[in-house]
Amino acid sequence: MAKAIANRDEDYSQWYIDIVKKANLADNSAVRGCMVIKPYGYALWENMRDQLDKMFKETGHVNAYFPLFVPKSLFEAEEKNAEGFAKECAVVTHYRLKNNPDEPGKLMVDPEAKLEEELVVRPTSEAIIWNTYRDWINSYRDLPLLINQWANVVRWEMRTRLFLRTAEFLWQEGHTAHSTKEEAIEEAKRMQDVYAQFAEEYMAMPVVRGTKSESERFAGADDTYTIEALMQDGKALQAGTSHFLGQNFAKAFEVKFSNENNQEEYVWATSWGVSTRLIGGLIMTHSDNEGLVLPPKLAPVQVVIIPIPKPGAEIDEVAEKLMRDLKAKGIRVQYDTDAKKRPGFKFAEHELRGVPVRVGIGKRDLEKGVVEIARRDTKEKSAQPLEGVVDHIEQLLGDIQDNLFNRALKFREEKTTVVDTFEEFKAVLKEDIPGFISAHWDGTNETEQKIKELTKATIRCIPNDAPEEEGQCVFSGKPSSRRVLFAKAY
Amino acid sequence: MAKAIANRDEDYSQWYIDIVKKANLADNSAVRGCMVIKPYGYALWENMRDQLDKMFKETGHVNAYFPLFVPKSLFEAEEKNAEGFAKECAVVTHYRLKNNPDEPGKLMVDPEAKLEEELVVRPTSEAIIWNTYRDWINSYRDLPLLINQWANVVRWEMRTRLFLRTAEFLWQEGHTAHSTKEEAIEEAKRMQDVYAQFAEEYMAMPVVRGTKSESERFAGADDTYTIEALMQDGKALQAGTSHFLGQNFAKAFEVKFSNENNQEEYVWATSWGVSTRLIGGLIMTHSDNEGLVLPPKLAPVQVVIIPIPKPGAEIDEVAEKLMRDLKAKGIRVQYDTDAKKRPGFKFAEHELRGVPVRVGIGKRDLEKGVVEIARRDTKEKSAQPLEGVVDHIEQLLGDIQDNLFNRALKFREEKTTVVDTFEEFKAVLKEDIPGFISAHWDGTNETEQKIKELTKATIRCIPNDAPEEEGQCVFSGKPSSRRVLFAKAY
Repeated sequence: MAKAIANRDEDYSQWYIDIVKKANLADNSAVRGCMVIKPYGYALWENMRDQLDKMFKETGHVNAYFPLFVPKSLFEAEEKNAEGFAKECAVVTHYRLKNNPDEPGKLMVDPEAKLEEELVVRPTSEAIIWNTYRDWINSYRDLPLLINQWANVVRWEMRTRLFLRTAEFLWQEGHTAHSTKEEAIEEAKRMQDVYAQFAEEYMAMPVVRGTKSESERFAGADDTYTIEALMQDGKALQAGTSHFLGQNFAKAFEVKFSNENNQEEYVWATSWGVSTRLIGGLIMTHSDNEGLVLPPKLAPVQVVIIPIPKPGAEIDEVAEKLMRDLKAKGIRVQYDTDAKKRPGFKFAEHELRGVPVRVGIGKRDLEKGVVEIARRDTKEKSAQPLEGVVDHIEQLLGDIQDNLFNRALKFREEKTTVVDTFEEFKAVLKEDIPGFISAHWDGTNETEQKIKELTKATIRCIPNDAPEEEGQCVFSGKPSSRRVLFAKAY
Repeated sequence: MAKAIANRDEDYSQWYIDIVKKANLADNSAVRGCMVIKPYGYALWENMRDQLDKMFKETGHVNAYFPLFVPKSLFEAEEKNAEGFAKECAVVTHYRLKNNPDEPGKLMVDPEAKLEEELVVRPTSEAIIWNTYRDWINSYRDLPLLINQWANVVRWEMRTRLFLRTAEFLWQEGHTAHSTKEEAIEEAKRMQDVYAQFAEEYMAMPVVRGTKSESERFAGADDTYTIEALMQDGKALQAGTSHFLGQNFAKAFEVKFSNENNQEEYVWATSWGVSTRLIGGLIMTHSDNEGLVLPPKLAPVQVVIIPIPKPGAEIDEVAEKLMRDLKAKGIRVQYDTDAKKRPGFKFAEHELRGVPVRVGIGKRDLEKGVVEIARRDTKEKSAQPLEGVVDHIEQLLGDIQDNLFNRALKFREEKTTVVDTFEEFKAVLKEDIPGFISAHWDGTNETEQKIKELTKATIRCIPNDAPEEEGQCVFSGKPSSRRVLFAKAY
């Protein structure tokens, strides 16, 4: 095939880029660090977005839209948040271009159109949203406010990688306001659960639910709840975060409500987000040397039908009936009738695109009343009787979804190592596929930073399900009461 | 009611703003000219977007996403387009903020983080997209390319008005590439038809389909096809435009394809867009002194059920069954159980929000086996037997949709005046509700500009269905072969 991709075991990084580009998910653009999401990649994002949106609405949230720009004076109001994002802000300073008198046909920034106050292109929207919430919240009757936004954001990253880290990306950001601390924490944890459920049930990507250490928290949060996934190369990916923001933004933007006793209180806040980064996670959880592998629940095309060797009246008739029957079951199906390409070429092409199930319809097979079914995940092929094939395919899509999850879960379990000494810790990190390390930590920022400097591994999270266990910090030897998860991370 | 709105007949402009704000559709923000789209307004936009998206996909288009930023050198490549938008561009010049040494806690633009090349925040995406298409198009087999994008764009407008003209707005922009001129023109006209169908069937807003005069064309287009609607105050609203771009962008960005004879040719282009401006059109087509009036097909809530005077076991039971039955028919229904508000207050509130059908359930009515049904468009009320009420409501929603369209069409027909002299022309424009003026025009830009200076009326379009008719220009007296539509416009 023309579109060869790098070998996954030899050059994981190049393999990843090849998959993104050659499966037509995304490409670099003329703008430094910004990507173009191509139609096939965007169709995948639409499926993810629509499912997440459904889950947000089922948990009581509504969508709204807030401005792209944040005036500098609002941006700097919550100091920790501002400090956390200041270094990566795109800033609008002018509002007009004019003809360049020195270069006919060229434009220049019009120095007379300088803004009085610079505008930051939102890297996240807490500031602009909490400045708005001040007008929306007066009384406890206005709470909770459960709002989500689908938007683009910009963070001027120096080292970018398609989907995983781009200067502009698409995401959703939930911003909720509550009358009590308990309710806000409950909301932040609920959304962590929603993210985990989406990752596991739809992306077939197992995740560890946990809490971030202080140094890894979102800038401006009192606590950050995270879902962490393990990629095939043994590095972790932070896949979604949900923040308990305390009263930090309420205080910065003077957002108070009068409670049932008519007393004024600051409002409690959460925010939570997932982004197009999830597509990177999806790729690095399931794909292989033949290309993309997609979980059926999110695949833009779930079943492709290929005529062998090419379309013809008899094959068309069978294929079109099969299409209708599959569509009637809500299955997304494509009939690839391109007569210019040979079946073998098409097989490779749809493998590269990660289509979960391939149905080959050939004349000789039809005489026997069978078609050939191939599954993308295991590459197993089998002849299936035409009768009952729709039910078989429906079942198979479910099996593939389950198999992808179980395979990834097994991988993560195998690649999670419990260590008790720093020697073991370092040895694990030297392996080809290091994975998660479960180790005791003394709870200090100092130790965490020291470990990071020495090994590049960071604390991914303090897992929700980590049992109380007396032990000694793997680095300092100081006492610790539970293990945390370390890993090198994207 | 607390939320009084201005009288539509006395102050249309204030009435409009009151509707937008008090029906909770949108609000101003801390950023000059940028709006916050509130949850109720966004739910309306979601319904519009989803229906348009469906229609785009049914006509063979796919979605993708291109960068927010356009490097200045790309932006200026198509000169007419650049010239048309240069005066309203937000420009990013820096990519970092830093602590302000003179003001602790404040940030400033870091002068060392100046971009080598400024980035324009997209006012429209032809430039960035055609720069990308160069890599995607090689041969006639790559064509047509039928791509749409849902995105935010920024045009630095000096006079803004919620939804109608805002510095940032949400829209979709289709960008297609074709191998022949004929096919591109056909596509541009097809999308004009799609827009007209959406406006009339979903928004219940009648539109005139036509072609723009040269001076009103999109910057960079060879032809602009438009749909024009008439607002209640007799001003026109350009509701959607579809452009035949010729080979202008292909030439500016060197996008060529090899045809079937292996010869290189420039690609032919279209682009087309509608935006959140449509919400302004929706408001100004149907709403009244009680508030918003929404066509049932787009209303976020189609039916509201109100217990009279308040919820109770018996009423709840009837309401909940009705809810289930309506939902089973795909009808969006809300049961307003807020016991703190009186029925009269709720009636006014849901009228303000434009809910098409209100069902009042009272104890005494229930004894008679009836409920009260009120329709928002005509404010007619009737007692309806509970038996068969679901079918009645379903029918009523259809009737309301039709009535809104017919009412608006009748209004437009009444407010379209055929004139043959400039005196008549000016007299019509002096009326309280001037409307469309159908008049002969000599086809010159000079006459068009002169009329605009003298009357503020512009040529809205040369209607597709204008018959050939010999006549004399209403201003110059020169010969003309068909009438065009003039109006003052938003």
